Amino acid sequence: MGAMERPTDHRGSEVLSREECDRLLDSAQVGRVAFLYAGDPHILPINYRFHQGAIIFRTTVGSKMDAAEMHRRFAFEIDGWDADSGSGWSVLAHGMGEAVTDPEETAALEGLGLVSWAGDESEDMWFRIALDDITGRGVG
Amino acid sequence: MGAMERPTDHRGSEVLSREECDRLLDSAQVGRVAFLYAGDPHILPINYRFHQGAIIFRTTVGSKMDAAEMHRRFAFEIDGWDADSGSGWSVLAHGMGEAVTDPEETAALEGLGLVSWAGDESEDMWFRIALDDITGRGVG
Repeated sequence: MGAMERPTDHRGSEVLSREECDRLLDSAQVGRVAFLYAGDPHILPINYRFHQGAIIFRTTVGSKMDAAEMHRRFAFEIDGWDADSGSGWSVLAHGMGEAVTDPEETAALEGLGLVSWAGDESEDMWFRIALDDITGRGVG
Repeated sequence: MGAMERPTDHRGSEVLSREECDRLLDSAQVGRVAFLYAGDPHILPINYRFHQGAIIFRTTVGSKMDAAEMHRRFAFEIDGWDADSGSGWSVLAHGMGEAVTDPEETAALEGLGLVSWAGDESEDMWFRIALDDITGRGVG
């Protein structure tokens, strides 16, 4: 991703197009969400799918990501880094989180083939971050 | 990391010992920091070293991580995921951030062999997150 003709930001990092960001969001499977909890920022890795402009994942009621806490702003990030070439990229997105409880909607999400990071699906719920802000940069 | 005898959290995830967390922090090279900026959580990938209980990295003045913004709470996270075995782990830590400007201290940090994610070192500054809270879990 080091083509000279691409735009750069104030750090000199290559700015990825929205199409490139969408392609990377489509192809990755593990990302990280960040959110504020008890006044501190937190980061959790999640297995996710990028579906209809939203990050879809499963989580467990009772964790830091419980339903009552979900309706707020989240950051979502994916990145890749090649140690040999010293090049990397990252995509950062934001959106409001919400539990998905409607049976028709959850039935549709079952088809995405997602399993939760924790593996135990007995308590899992579906969550969605509807992204309103997606940016990416490449480095190296 | 699936040994049955290890303690688990409320999600059923294996709780990593502090020694395991320190070993993972020592061995990884890329992690992510999260912080609040303009009311939104943000996540940035960084090249880092774990040094004397702190996360050390370089960043550029003028970015979202500028010096005036650094003295606040950060989250720092590393994770690993093996798609074949379906197992993973993550370490989450917290601490106050601060710019490192003392010449003796920065001279010592030069020996860590760190380069910034952005590659251009001309504007880089040293930053430190002194960790006061380190937890880890293994999954799968």
